[in-house]
Amino acid sequence: MHILIIGAAGMVGRKLAARLAKDANLDGRAIDAMTLVDVVTPEAPAGFTGKTVLETVDLSATGEAERLVARRPDVIFHLAAIVSGEAELDFDKGYRINLDGTRYLFDGIRIAHGQDGYKPRVVFTSSIAVFGAPLPYPIPDEFHTTPLTSYGTQKAICELLLSDYSRRGFFDGIGIRLPTICIRPGKPNKAASGFFSNILREPLVGQEAVLPVSEDVRHWHASPRSAVGFLIHGATIDVEKVGPRRNLSMPGLSATVGEQIDALRRVVGEKAVSLIRREPDEMIMRMCAGWAPGFEAKRATELGFTAEKSFDEIIKVHIEDELGGKL
Amino acid sequence: MHILIIGAAGMVGRKLAARLAKDANLDGRAIDAMTLVDVVTPEAPAGFTGKTVLETVDLSATGEAERLVARRPDVIFHLAAIVSGEAELDFDKGYRINLDGTRYLFDGIRIAHGQDGYKPRVVFTSSIAVFGAPLPYPIPDEFHTTPLTSYGTQKAICELLLSDYSRRGFFDGIGIRLPTICIRPGKPNKAASGFFSNILREPLVGQEAVLPVSEDVRHWHASPRSAVGFLIHGATIDVEKVGPRRNLSMPGLSATVGEQIDALRRVVGEKAVSLIRREPDEMIMRMCAGWAPGFEAKRATELGFTAEKSFDEIIKVHIEDELGGKL
Repeated sequence: MHILIIGAAGMVGRKLAARLAKDANLDGRAIDAMTLVDVVTPEAPAGFTGKTVLETVDLSATGEAERLVARRPDVIFHLAAIVSGEAELDFDKGYRINLDGTRYLFDGIRIAHGQDGYKPRVVFTSSIAVFGAPLPYPIPDEFHTTPLTSYGTQKAICELLLSDYSRRGFFDGIGIRLPTICIRPGKPNKAASGFFSNILREPLVGQEAVLPVSEDVRHWHASPRSAVGFLIHGATIDVEKVGPRRNLSMPGLSATVGEQIDALRRVVGEKAVSLIRREPDEMIMRMCAGWAPGFEAKRATELGFTAEKSFDEIIKVHIEDELGGKL
Repeated sequence: MHILIIGAAGMVGRKLAARLAKDANLDGRAIDAMTLVDVVTPEAPAGFTGKTVLETVDLSATGEAERLVARRPDVIFHLAAIVSGEAELDFDKGYRINLDGTRYLFDGIRIAHGQDGYKPRVVFTSSIAVFGAPLPYPIPDEFHTTPLTSYGTQKAICELLLSDYSRRGFFDGIGIRLPTICIRPGKPNKAASGFFSNILREPLVGQEAVLPVSEDVRHWHASPRSAVGFLIHGATIDVEKVGPRRNLSMPGLSATVGEQIDALRRVVGEKAVSLIRREPDEMIMRMCAGWAPGFEAKRATELGFTAEKSFDEIIKVHIEDELGGKL
């Protein structure tokens, strides 16, 4: 089978490609080819013996979606997006990439479907940013999407398109509302939510990290490994079981910052905890107040999606996947 | 003030223009001009002494949205849409008119806002078709939008755009989710939901009507007069009180077909009821099962939107507004 990953140079895209290369099959079907595209050229995953095509593609540019679809990939993972902060700063770019780009892809598939019955699986990464405060805790599966960012709006619109195009039979779509990914590997970045990862990742390697909010802030997390697991499961799940409501809030772990720190203490010790420096930031605290504290995620759990059950587990996953299994 | 109605030739558009012409003011401000546009040229409302411009406009055609916005109307009522059945039959046309046309309008306003700070009130007619079965009864304000038609999808997407563009400050948008309008004036039409009106309107003038479903079918209704009232209230309401969630399920009357018939009996008598002929239609019965039985509409009610409290009242409104006050 042929797999296309759009947004393959991002953190989750790279890990997904690596996992598929390692598995060499999806749901028992051998993977013969992978096409990996992004706005910067993705790297080839190690150890893949099938055909690999690596390309620089801007999905919002004329003809690009049609070109990708022309190869008739069996499964399309669509992970590409302008992130929340940039979509808020650059209105046109956010709508062009996050909405129009996705619509071009969906329409490209629709036209191909009309030509020869082509009907791929499309796994789309949505986000808990489709929800906007005030939010209950836990958020039920049937809660409305009232985003408070343009990014969240664009994701919510693409979810609606995904469901309608699936209902029409143009493709089999599954929308995956990812929790905040924790522990995000790499360097600390400027994302307002970065501290959730920073306060664990940096102390794990003996570095200081800044905590800008109080310990009672509650949020919704899953590891990068779980995120990849969601996407793989979304690519193989029986869509008949899913029914017409194709966008699913993924399972995750609802935890306070205090619970994160307790887990760090249990797994690594007090010395790591002492590397967390408290520097309250009014702006980040205000933003946090509007973020999702946690979800019921009943449907996704019943459909077999799984995530970590404790922050100890999330920290251990990071140690295994990013630090070679030891500190 | 200058008012623009897009979709002014439709049933609700005509009644809205007539009401505005009669009132000659909106929230105490005199109406100097009305621009009435539709895909067919609208009629001028009787008795309006301000300037009236009547035009044939396809909002989805290049440059048309900009041209309408160039006149800087203070209030824009956007009622234009391809109806549900047609949007389902003609995928491209539905998305072009219902989604792209609306987005062109919103972007036209956004660009004008960037030029000179133009910030009109935009009242958008959405629909209970944004909800898809299975549905609880009553449907709470915070229930998710999972439409089962392309029309409902297009309306739900426009709602998201309306909220985001309002949040960004480009205009003050209010989305009005209309109940099924009953009693719809005119001739029986082929809409699957037409019987809700037909079984009252036809017997009121001594004509037979066909009832294709059982009497226990429950649905959500408001009169044309209430629909116009919703739009006027949406044009004048304090948006600060509405907050960021700009799309509101309107109040209405939840009633079974049996309750409709009981009201007809009370208001007109058994002879009218005897004109309803039962002709069960499997397809319409199946479609009905997915329609909204009723809403809590707490927020809209708190914000001062009002509708009829009984079907007797709905029938009396029809007699007053369509039959000159007597049978």
